Amino acid sequence: MTPQKILLIILDGASDRPVDGATPLQSAKKSNLDALAKNGICGIMDTISPGVPPGSATAHLAIFGYDPYKYYTGRGPFEAAGVGLEVRKGDVAFRCNFATARDGKIVDRRAGRIRDTKELEKAVNEGVDLGIEFQFRAGTAHRGALLLRAPGLSSDVTPTDPNKEGVPAGRTKATSKKGEKTARIMNDFTAQVAKVLDKHPINKKRASEGKSPANILLLRGAGVVPHIPPFEEKYGLRSAAVAAAGLIIGIARICRMNFIPTEGATGGLDSNLDNKIKNASDALDKYDFVMLNIKGADEAGHDGDFKAKTEFIGKIDDALGRLPRREDILTVVTADHSTPVSVKNHSGDPVPLIISGNGVRVDGVEKYDEINCARGGLNRLRGMDLMPILMDLLGKGKKFGE
Amino acid sequence: MTPQKILLIILDGASDRPVDGATPLQSAKKSNLDALAKNGICGIMDTISPGVPPGSATAHLAIFGYDPYKYYTGRGPFEAAGVGLEVRKGDVAFRCNFATARDGKIVDRRAGRIRDTKELEKAVNEGVDLGIEFQFRAGTAHRGALLLRAPGLSSDVTPTDPNKEGVPAGRTKATSKKGEKTARIMNDFTAQVAKVLDKHPINKKRASEGKSPANILLLRGAGVVPHIPPFEEKYGLRSAAVAAAGLIIGIARICRMNFIPTEGATGGLDSNLDNKIKNASDALDKYDFVMLNIKGADEAGHDGDFKAKTEFIGKIDDALGRLPRREDILTVVTADHSTPVSVKNHSGDPVPLIISGNGVRVDGVEKYDEINCARGGLNRLRGMDLMPILMDLLGKGKKFGE
Repeated sequence: MTPQKILLIILDGASDRPVDGATPLQSAKKSNLDALAKNGICGIMDTISPGVPPGSATAHLAIFGYDPYKYYTGRGPFEAAGVGLEVRKGDVAFRCNFATARDGKIVDRRAGRIRDTKELEKAVNEGVDLGIEFQFRAGTAHRGALLLRAPGLSSDVTPTDPNKEGVPAGRTKATSKKGEKTARIMNDFTAQVAKVLDKHPINKKRASEGKSPANILLLRGAGVVPHIPPFEEKYGLRSAAVAAAGLIIGIARICRMNFIPTEGATGGLDSNLDNKIKNASDALDKYDFVMLNIKGADEAGHDGDFKAKTEFIGKIDDALGRLPRREDILTVVTADHSTPVSVKNHSGDPVPLIISGNGVRVDGVEKYDEINCARGGLNRLRGMDLMPILMDLLGKGKKFGE
Repeated sequence: MTPQKILLIILDGASDRPVDGATPLQSAKKSNLDALAKNGICGIMDTISPGVPPGSATAHLAIFGYDPYKYYTGRGPFEAAGVGLEVRKGDVAFRCNFATARDGKIVDRRAGRIRDTKELEKAVNEGVDLGIEFQFRAGTAHRGALLLRAPGLSSDVTPTDPNKEGVPAGRTKATSKKGEKTARIMNDFTAQVAKVLDKHPINKKRASEGKSPANILLLRGAGVVPHIPPFEEKYGLRSAAVAAAGLIIGIARICRMNFIPTEGATGGLDSNLDNKIKNASDALDKYDFVMLNIKGADEAGHDGDFKAKTEFIGKIDDALGRLPRREDILTVVTADHSTPVSVKNHSGDPVPLIISGNGVRVDGVEKYDEINCARGGLNRLRGMDLMPILMDLLGKGKKFGE
């Protein structure tokens, strides 16, 4: 039978470079991933283009078939969608950090890694008046997002987050005439927020306990919310996303995928993978396209921890063993980018890719890793190529010409 | 360690098609090239795009990451830079040939392959007055380059070189309204040069010796000098070029690479390869990016000489054995284009490529040739992809998105 549905598994940052002759994927126990490779067609994929290190947002957009050079306008809009703000075309959105300032200087960019900021969120939304519509939403730990809604806003502004400590708490400046209104509002927001937070009981309590007070909010990643055509409109597939990281949830939401929260999913090495896989698997009953993002390997890559990365891939593989086998599903495994432990950051190396399911040209590749997949039948693709290939395997390819 | 520097070795025209089942690269003794392949990641590369036979200039531009469709405006500017003229944006430059005309017809397009033309160069520069700034510079043998500098110049002109003998010595015509001023100047130049050369003692002597006098200059390859961002500005790498062919030197100079001349380098089969390799290797102490172009195999390809090409590749391989092994270097081997002996000209076949050095995904390819590299881990790239990949391996990739 022709596959009807797609399960797209993105092993965030799992792709790597060899260390002493082998990558974490090559070193991990991964019989389930290898079985998928063996029964599928494999290849390597530059999610953006050869040699360009992708950010997670640009990579996911490209994999979903949205040209990132058109739709990626900065990280703010995706973070804002990720924390649940209803972003609209033309809004300007920012990533935020609660931070600690003393005598006008930033002394802790994460406010002592403060955990619960819901009360502070409320105080900001109630105590600040900008004369325009705005919404601030706290995220996990010290993080959050800010949305400004008014005519004439722009992302032509510098971040108020200087991205280091020991320097004055930032003011923003417009980088063009267009950005002046937005810059004024941001500076106003920053000043009012400082007053609201400074006197807040939570911060008085933190100070008395010797903890860093969350007394300022730093803004960065300014972006004008783009118009992104909904995934279902674009492909005719009812779609859902299972993910833990705010940014990934934001991308899914901005594409109007249905976000399915997972209990115990953290986006880290301690994430509950069984729950995520069960959620993704169950979602296939209701949806035609399910994206499952598993983040931990990326974290281990950023930490430069080869062992943790390898073991986590083993855990993923183990959990994948519990995926039911279904004739009607096209299972796709890939990564959004490489995060080599030797680099501790995203690199421009291509990622390995499997497409497994009825109809694919099984190619003799027997292992899911960077080296073996490079010998696969898909050869070397770009991220933007993936969705057309998958749609075609569903029998929904768009014919060009009669 | 992360590689810090790049040695890019371009085996000009070495790539070929099989003759009786093997290409010159497959037939040559090349243990050093094969060792690089074995320790590196391999692939094939369309320097322009599949099936398009590249010129040397367009191929080199693409390999250096300059879009040739944007920066290649004709061969003149590169030849002019190659003979050492200081080209500036907006100049119009030409390739020139000293030739012999009799009774208004061209009888020898190379003026008896005249060797030393420095005196004639001087006579032309001193004896011609165009009313605008110009510079003529002799190159090797009968070759040279002409630069015109004035407002309103254009390359919309026909060449004065008819590219055959027995026909009238060419006059130029504008191919558009824009080209009219330039055409007038070229015709004026041609006429004045003929007067200056005709009476020159060198030509009187040549005629008395029965040699073809160099009594006219033919112009072709008109091009407006483009603004090419300096390589160092583009990549942050201090760069140097070791090459012998004027055109390649011109490309390097126009990209503001530091040209390092090599004693005994000829661009032919008799070139002193040991000196070139030593120069390139020494340059790596001072520069971050060293381009080494070795031209001879291209010449053998144009001559259709399989044996000479194969033997010359063996010589290159032998000389490469003297490259020191350095942990901090990324060594790249490729060709700018194929020059199949069966074609005697450039073809559109992709060229084999090795990237060898720390961090690359070694792929199991053990031989540097057109067939084995096609099975490599890089798969099939384009020339413009190479620099982003190399920059990423140096840890200097430009991330797209946060």
